[in-house]
Amino acid sequence: MGLVVQKYGGSSVADAEGIKRVAKRVVEAKKNGHQVVVVVSAMGDTTDELIDLAQEVSPIPSGREFDMLLTAGERISMALLAMAIKNLGHEAQSFTGSQAGVITDSVHNKARIIDVTPGRIRDSVDEGNIAIVAGFQGVSQDKKDITTLGRGGSDTTAVALAAALDAEVCEIYTDVDGVFTADPRVVKKARKIDQISFEDMLELASSGSKVLLHRCVEYARRYNIPIHVRSSFSGLKGTWVSNEPQGDRPMEQAIISGVAHDTSEAKVTVVGVPDKPGEAARIFRAIADSEVNIDMVVQNVSAASTGLTDISFTLPKDEGRKAVAALEKTRAAVGFDSLRYDDQIAKISLVGAGMKTNPGVTATFFEALSNAGVNIELISTSEIRISVVTRADDVKEAVQAVHSAFGLDTESDEAVVYGGTGR
Amino acid sequence: MGLVVQKYGGSSVADAEGIKRVAKRVVEAKKNGHQVVVVVSAMGDTTDELIDLAQEVSPIPSGREFDMLLTAGERISMALLAMAIKNLGHEAQSFTGSQAGVITDSVHNKARIIDVTPGRIRDSVDEGNIAIVAGFQGVSQDKKDITTLGRGGSDTTAVALAAALDAEVCEIYTDVDGVFTADPRVVKKARKIDQISFEDMLELASSGSKVLLHRCVEYARRYNIPIHVRSSFSGLKGTWVSNEPQGDRPMEQAIISGVAHDTSEAKVTVVGVPDKPGEAARIFRAIADSEVNIDMVVQNVSAASTGLTDISFTLPKDEGRKAVAALEKTRAAVGFDSLRYDDQIAKISLVGAGMKTNPGVTATFFEALSNAGVNIELISTSEIRISVVTRADDVKEAVQAVHSAFGLDTESDEAVVYGGTGR
Repeated sequence: MGLVVQKYGGSSVADAEGIKRVAKRVVEAKKNGHQVVVVVSAMGDTTDELIDLAQEVSPIPSGREFDMLLTAGERISMALLAMAIKNLGHEAQSFTGSQAGVITDSVHNKARIIDVTPGRIRDSVDEGNIAIVAGFQGVSQDKKDITTLGRGGSDTTAVALAAALDAEVCEIYTDVDGVFTADPRVVKKARKIDQISFEDMLELASSGSKVLLHRCVEYARRYNIPIHVRSSFSGLKGTWVSNEPQGDRPMEQAIISGVAHDTSEAKVTVVGVPDKPGEAARIFRAIADSEVNIDMVVQNVSAASTGLTDISFTLPKDEGRKAVAALEKTRAAVGFDSLRYDDQIAKISLVGAGMKTNPGVTATFFEALSNAGVNIELISTSEIRISVVTRADDVKEAVQAVHSAFGLDTESDEAVVYGGTGR
Repeated sequence: MGLVVQKYGGSSVADAEGIKRVAKRVVEAKKNGHQVVVVVSAMGDTTDELIDLAQEVSPIPSGREFDMLLTAGERISMALLAMAIKNLGHEAQSFTGSQAGVITDSVHNKARIIDVTPGRIRDSVDEGNIAIVAGFQGVSQDKKDITTLGRGGSDTTAVALAAALDAEVCEIYTDVDGVFTADPRVVKKARKIDQISFEDMLELASSGSKVLLHRCVEYARRYNIPIHVRSSFSGLKGTWVSNEPQGDRPMEQAIISGVAHDTSEAKVTVVGVPDKPGEAARIFRAIADSEVNIDMVVQNVSAASTGLTDISFTLPKDEGRKAVAALEKTRAAVGFDSLRYDDQIAKISLVGAGMKTNPGVTATFFEALSNAGVNIELISTSEIRISVVTRADDVKEAVQAVHSAFGLDTESDEAVVYGGTGR
């Protein structure tokens, strides 16, 4: 039996009862003969309460101090969890990100992990303890300041520790039963996926699936750490994310993992761009300089009569204003006609291996949308994904139609639990 | 202008408004040209709330984890204070006890400071920042675990940092105007003391005065760091604790600092102890082995007829049960008759330099009590203190009588603010 890293989100440790329930589950793993390292988020609303306090004393809190403040949240949950475990008669020690050797860069509020030196954690588990580690936080390499990792930080902490400790598996406990073939709130017949490859999971994550964030899956893929996403409330087996062979399907057949959707994006169209070298570069340099992350990019062929083309891209809604402002500044230099901004869109993505080499997949996808009366505004494809942009109003019909068309609907009427995840 | 260490207790930073008020006061000191290091306690009720949470998950929380939990409190207040200061346009950085170099032993919940290595604090203030340091906490020398310093920990942190940084003064901000000649809740005419020696302050602290704890004064005396105790609510000058000459009184005259009282103790009398060598030692070894701290010890001369004597001592009420149990176990070996336990007592102490060499002081003290009809049960004296034990019911009359008898009453009717202090 090897070492297991378990991660519990804020909703799993929202109160004393939750902490005691998690303690029992942790002790079970220990009793099964594993060395256990637990990564824990802040309790339920703690982070929001701390943010409110910060707003009361300063409208624009300093990044360094904001991180110092927020990291109090995990400090509380991890100490309480260690106490609860000891109360069950097992030895436990809690460690801050800094003590656990989570070394980051100095970008406060969204630091990136540079290195993990888990000497104290290794010693602690070798002495027979269950080690509890604060998620979401680290210490900067140069200044030794406390940092936080931003969205999905606790999951990333868990995977990074699993890699550094050469763990058998990184178990991510959450309030849903696993990764589903579609959002069960939208598609009632969505099925839990038993096993999915890192690549497909990455595409699902970047296409709107919220169970695991892209960043943590990327880290797991790089170090080949299997992730087991499962519910902290039920005892059910969840979804394994790894590059182990998936069942016994023929290798060359397209394997559809699921349908993801995303209504958090907006679409910007730059109309009437002169179709000559360098214009697109200018546009996207302006976007990049304003630190806006863009997602899909589509350029139509130019109309021969005018020599002008349109360039569209999608981006997070809350960065829309910044992007439009940056583009307006380039209008003279680029010489485009106008800008269109549209935040009433949805992105529907089908993810699965072998898609490119199975032309029927694309056809089935478009037919399904057409039969459902859903109009397609943009199309973008990758090796293992097809994404389209539709009206936001059409999202439910579109996802259901595609899910059915690819035979993903479950026959059973089993209830599925689904919700958001913490940080 | 040199470096100033300021310490603010939990009641001064109880909410966002309090934090902003403290920020203004800190910035004032900086504007006056000082380098400023601020030590801060946890906000108001934070510590109690964390203790409640711990009780919910474990009836007997582990010391290590309890310290990890409690230190979240200062982490929150110090980050918020740093933000509030930055919001006033001044640079501030917060530091945990560990980051500030507060090195302790490994006794969780009541660690003692072994060393202070404030390199990061020195660098921070030299770069022009106001440094905010978490009070009450440190890191253990051997295991690098987070520790807390127990009662009076934040004051001790402040004095220890002041010593390590060679500060001009350590300002302890609290919710009272300073140290008074008696508790103003008991003696309406109590006067604020402008200046008091370390020795007198130590005696006052160990005699029931709660403004400064013995431990912090002891530290200040050892490193000769002047303490200025003052209100964080008013702008008034408070009480200076230092060994600078006190005014222009003749050197040999007794200088009475004040009258302290303490109703937190109980009295144990061991009745009928054989008056031979080794018996007292046996009794107090038993007490020491049960880790009970005792205060006054009095042994009467033995009655010639019986060869038996009585030994009385006082101790904190909440350790009474433990002490009595320990003594009962020695009854056979020591051969005493019986034990008497009495928790309805008060201790009244008069503190001042030159007392021993001024016999009139003792006489005046006893006369004052006699005139007030207060019976004396035990007497104990030191170089600069006389303490008596009386009935708890008599405490108010006793303190007022002594205060008047030594001319400490103020003539003015000025209102005085008085209350307890935080940790």
